[in-house]
Amino acid sequence: MLVKDIPVKECQELLTHIGFGRLACARDNRSYVVPIYFAYEPDHLYGFSTLGKKIEWMRLNPRVCVEVDEITSHTSWTSIILDGRYEELPDTPEYRSERDQAQKLLEKRFMWWQTAYAAEQRRSRNKPSPTIFYCIHVDEMTGRRAVPDSVETEYLKRSKERPLRRRN
Amino acid sequence: MLVKDIPVKECQELLTHIGFGRLACARDNRSYVVPIYFAYEPDHLYGFSTLGKKIEWMRLNPRVCVEVDEITSHTSWTSIILDGRYEELPDTPEYRSERDQAQKLLEKRFMWWQTAYAAEQRRSRNKPSPTIFYCIHVDEMTGRRAVPDSVETEYLKRSKERPLRRRN
Repeated sequence: MLVKDIPVKECQELLTHIGFGRLACARDNRSYVVPIYFAYEPDHLYGFSTLGKKIEWMRLNPRVCVEVDEITSHTSWTSIILDGRYEELPDTPEYRSERDQAQKLLEKRFMWWQTAYAAEQRRSRNKPSPTIFYCIHVDEMTGRRAVPDSVETEYLKRSKERPLRRRN
Repeated sequence: MLVKDIPVKECQELLTHIGFGRLACARDNRSYVVPIYFAYEPDHLYGFSTLGKKIEWMRLNPRVCVEVDEITSHTSWTSIILDGRYEELPDTPEYRSERDQAQKLLEKRFMWWQTAYAAEQRRSRNKPSPTIFYCIHVDEMTGRRAVPDSVETEYLKRSKERPLRRRN
């Protein structure tokens, strides 16, 4: 397997394209990881959530790690890992502009979010549970891509022709 | 979206079936998350890796979190989150039996692992870089499944017929 770093520009294109990953946060040296949808812009990503463990932990410790990948097989994958800082975008005049931007991008990216919000409004008779918008500021980002090397290609070909002997 | 907890037995079946997820570890209250392949047995999972940041962090702080999911759409998904403890399975007589069991299960689950190992052997002329086998002991596990509710189904149907009006 040949693994190489990919340039930042390629990482950014993938983050924009995929918009889905796993976010890990930490509290008292314990970790917690969950899937998230997001909208990426250079240097930050926007997300949304209802109140829960993830938001509670990030409010206490804003340092997070996000992993985004495209995996075709064990020898053919791309993975991006970024370290960032959580910032909540509350519904206040100070945050209006950034909150609007987050909402606009998320709506554009995820039509279903609008749908889910509308459904929630109807369910709760115009009193939907509050949606928390947030921003993850990207401090550091690395991307790696793996492709099969010539030896693996040969072994994979052979193992298809004649399965490797099992030990049991 | 209707979200409900799923019973432990169903979590176990999914973990056995999927064998792939994201592992988060923590150090100095920072988190780090990476994709992993694993073989699950009740109460623990086996994994393998070469030496790197993940192993270094888990040696310092064995408390980890693993997330495994099957996502069809934003309103149709299953996600399992488990808290566990890392234990390395070194190549010593004391660990021989458990290490053999880990290796056997991983080989059975992932034929490609054997292939990759063989390729590595050939590449490095019988001096492959050491593979680290480890066990994650499961302390706590929760699984949740989401399905679209009737309101979402209706809105999704409508949005297909007549797209929601954009704000910009």
